[in-house]
Amino acid sequence: MKKRARIIINRKNGKTSMKTYLDCFPCFVNQALRIGRMVTEDVTIIKQLIDEVGMMLKDIPLTSIPPETGEIIFKRVREITGQDDPLAEIKNHSTREILDLYPQLKRMIANSDDPLLTAVRLAIAGNVIDFGIHDDYDIHAEIRETLEKDFEICDIFEFRRALERAENILYIGDNAGESVFDRLLIETVNKPTIYVVRAEPVLNDVTYVDAVAAGIGQVAEICSSGSRAPGTILHSCSVKFRQLFRSADMVISKGQGNYEGLSDEPRPIFFLLKAKCPVIARDIGVNAGDIVLKRSEAK
Amino acid sequence: MKKRARIIINRKNGKTSMKTYLDCFPCFVNQALRIGRMVTEDVTIIKQLIDEVGMMLKDIPLTSIPPETGEIIFKRVREITGQDDPLAEIKNHSTREILDLYPQLKRMIANSDDPLLTAVRLAIAGNVIDFGIHDDYDIHAEIRETLEKDFEICDIFEFRRALERAENILYIGDNAGESVFDRLLIETVNKPTIYVVRAEPVLNDVTYVDAVAAGIGQVAEICSSGSRAPGTILHSCSVKFRQLFRSADMVISKGQGNYEGLSDEPRPIFFLLKAKCPVIARDIGVNAGDIVLKRSEAK
Repeated sequence: MKKRARIIINRKNGKTSMKTYLDCFPCFVNQALRIGRMVTEDVTIIKQLIDEVGMMLKDIPLTSIPPETGEIIFKRVREITGQDDPLAEIKNHSTREILDLYPQLKRMIANSDDPLLTAVRLAIAGNVIDFGIHDDYDIHAEIRETLEKDFEICDIFEFRRALERAENILYIGDNAGESVFDRLLIETVNKPTIYVVRAEPVLNDVTYVDAVAAGIGQVAEICSSGSRAPGTILHSCSVKFRQLFRSADMVISKGQGNYEGLSDEPRPIFFLLKAKCPVIARDIGVNAGDIVLKRSEAK
Repeated sequence: MKKRARIIINRKNGKTSMKTYLDCFPCFVNQALRIGRMVTEDVTIIKQLIDEVGMMLKDIPLTSIPPETGEIIFKRVREITGQDDPLAEIKNHSTREILDLYPQLKRMIANSDDPLLTAVRLAIAGNVIDFGIHDDYDIHAEIRETLEKDFEICDIFEFRRALERAENILYIGDNAGESVFDRLLIETVNKPTIYVVRAEPVLNDVTYVDAVAAGIGQVAEICSSGSRAPGTILHSCSVKFRQLFRSADMVISKGQGNYEGLSDEPRPIFFLLKAKCPVIARDIGVNAGDIVLKRSEAK
């Protein structure tokens, strides 16, 4: 007997943006629990955070974009802990560990048959460093797997062509530590690049100081999106960023949070990510665990 | 790099009862979502259920027993849907499908080298039919696996000895459909048995009508625990059941919900279950997925 509950998630008709699905709600509470445990050992504080997120659910419409909720949850984490950057230590740890691997990864790219594709694969491997999704990963295993794995969507032809034509690139970063992998891809591409970071600490997303620590400043101009959400939602970004976004020859967007905000924007965007969340995977049209280099359909 | 968040769950010192862990809170919201989807296709109703359970979280103390929350959630499911037994159809389907397997399972037990152990294994295999935990299982695969799998805890020696000495058995059922497997074990043991069911429909737990449909009435007396929770919490059970529980020569308790309520009771109990939930597994001292025949430590 194989009994499956009906899947009632609203599938997208044509192209709408990535909204909040019913499946996101347990996940919001789980995020509160997971982040709570990362920032404190005080069960009462973690329970308070869970309670507050629970009460918040009724005010989250299905039309909102999940990183909007992520922003509100993390704002409470900062308020409750009294820390401006509660995951600073974890982010520094991630960055240092990947910097230790940097020389080895650099050689791996240089010695490969297709340095660009290898750098793309490594940039996707780095996307596993996402504490908004899980708190346990093995970056060595991830690198090995991502170098071998088949892409579920691989618009590498379009990616190469866009790179050839572009005189400038807007590269929207995702997480701290992952940004060292981004640096390797930026170095491999070797074009004038603006690297976009979050305006304020949110989850373990990359901020200005995290990007500098990863050495991004040596290879790109670093610019804040103006967003406090763990993603890029244009209406909450700065005017300056929106201008950059619209005028850039080529936009590279890393990770799920940026995809959630930008999936419906009417300009070509190259999304590089590992689909970790089943809901986002379904939105993209792949399975959880798949790796993706996808040029946005919107034009 | 292997980064693990600290586990802050309160481990039990000595023997306390199975309380609500922080990990249970996202799971309560997930249960609302899963059950909501089973009973309606109306996204607004499912969202309402999620919202209500979200608001409920703040009122659930860590000292409560999880099935107490399960009872409250399902009460709202019944109220919102206006149905007394919203999963009746699913329960009937489970029972019919296992009844179709009954002759084959009966032969399997009769032809085995150790009929009692085979019947115990099958009774544990049936414990996978639990819509409080998941909505997708394969009973054929479960039977094959459970017949071969090593027990993580197997107090079969104590179980046989208790059976030999007992003149009567109180067998506390768990889920509809699973009760057909219970019937096979009761037939194999062949002692006067009272089979305990929930007082009212809650999740897919076995009620009087479900037990009758499984043919339990042919092999045991069927008695309600008086509980409306998806588990057996003595203080919310009837006086009659509590007397039966205390005076029975031997108590067999199926599944997680009964374990959660009875794990600290000061009388010997044989718990037969598959540890599906990682929190309960940890409480028992096993891993999720493990199968268990455990005589309670309390005496």
